[in-house]
Amino acid sequence: MHNIKVIEVRQSVFAHNEKKADELRLKLKEQGTYLLNVMSSPGSGKTTLLVALINLLKEKLRIGVMEADIDARVDADKVHGLTGVKTIELHTGGACHLDAKMCEEGLDALGVDGLDLVILENVGNLVCPAEFDTGSASNLNILSIPEGDDKPLKYPLMFQVCSAFVFSKIDTMPVFDFSIERAKANILKLNGKARFFPVSAKTGEGMDELAAYIYETVRAFKEGR
Amino acid sequence: MHNIKVIEVRQSVFAHNEKKADELRLKLKEQGTYLLNVMSSPGSGKTTLLVALINLLKEKLRIGVMEADIDARVDADKVHGLTGVKTIELHTGGACHLDAKMCEEGLDALGVDGLDLVILENVGNLVCPAEFDTGSASNLNILSIPEGDDKPLKYPLMFQVCSAFVFSKIDTMPVFDFSIERAKANILKLNGKARFFPVSAKTGEGMDELAAYIYETVRAFKEGR
Repeated sequence: MHNIKVIEVRQSVFAHNEKKADELRLKLKEQGTYLLNVMSSPGSGKTTLLVALINLLKEKLRIGVMEADIDARVDADKVHGLTGVKTIELHTGGACHLDAKMCEEGLDALGVDGLDLVILENVGNLVCPAEFDTGSASNLNILSIPEGDDKPLKYPLMFQVCSAFVFSKIDTMPVFDFSIERAKANILKLNGKARFFPVSAKTGEGMDELAAYIYETVRAFKEGR
Repeated sequence: MHNIKVIEVRQSVFAHNEKKADELRLKLKEQGTYLLNVMSSPGSGKTTLLVALINLLKEKLRIGVMEADIDARVDADKVHGLTGVKTIELHTGGACHLDAKMCEEGLDALGVDGLDLVILENVGNLVCPAEFDTGSASNLNILSIPEGDDKPLKYPLMFQVCSAFVFSKIDTMPVFDFSIERAKANILKLNGKARFFPVSAKTGEGMDELAAYIYETVRAFKEGR
């Protein structure tokens, strides 16, 4: 009985969230601010990668960052300290994901006026964040080499809702049994339009290609293409 | 309004689950079956580690395995194929965790008669599984070296509800900035009784100590100590 109740409420929450997310997406489109929702497992190197990416883009785009976390403020301090861009921390109060309303509150607190790109670093989790539309223009997943190339088989929804996939920490490929071709094949079965970016934030390999893709995506969005 | 509703229902679900978990724990105690709930991020090397651990213990303990997954059956096939122990796959149907009722259904399907130890490999997730008591005798967390030693700061509940912590993939320490002392200190702040096991399932380092700890824990449980 309890189980049935949960499902009903979750469905009403999902429907409510999708409406809210569409409204937020429309508002951001009118304001010309591209919201990029970045999702991954804990420890995939999201924060380090975002620092490197922002430093490649910050002369060409006005960028803001929202760091979602259950509790700590480790990441927001790091991102702001190493990039200088406007950053806020969103605490979910124990929750495992952000929804569109929490995201909108974050954007209001950040202040998006004049920003071309807001990067949302979602809670580290391959399950729940995939279920909640944040109102983002697109979703990007970071899959780190140590996690293994079978993750798309095990967390399919995450790999369906993202359009771009970063394979991070490729400098560690010699010590792990990860095949980029196998990872791509596993993702393409779920998501035929996926784009792939193998990178190492440590050595810089692949970072220019990723930055160019984000820049071009934001420019196309702003030009209404 | 929707948010308030969710919280209320979640609380009632939590209370209901805790009662169910206590009943299941009592039943397993009477049957002499130790349920070990293993939790970690996706890609921490849970399955590989469990295969190595089971192969060290299976001559001394009668072992069963429940592999919880959202969708795929990759892990159950691997564990059964490489250890020969009785294994079942639990599909959560998209849910991000197991609760005590799902766990009990799994145990009934597995058949625990005569088993000393059942290992539950929970869904790969550092958030939600920590919130739901499965009825286990104890919880074990696997933190892999590539994830970083700051994870306890970011997912505190997970590090509070576990009693043993395996630092996995220690063969990769040369390529990552992970300090075992820093990880221990971060965990001990949340959990003063934590036990630590640095291991590499690949090289075998530390595996005997981990197996001895599990064996001794199960024996003490069966002798009512």
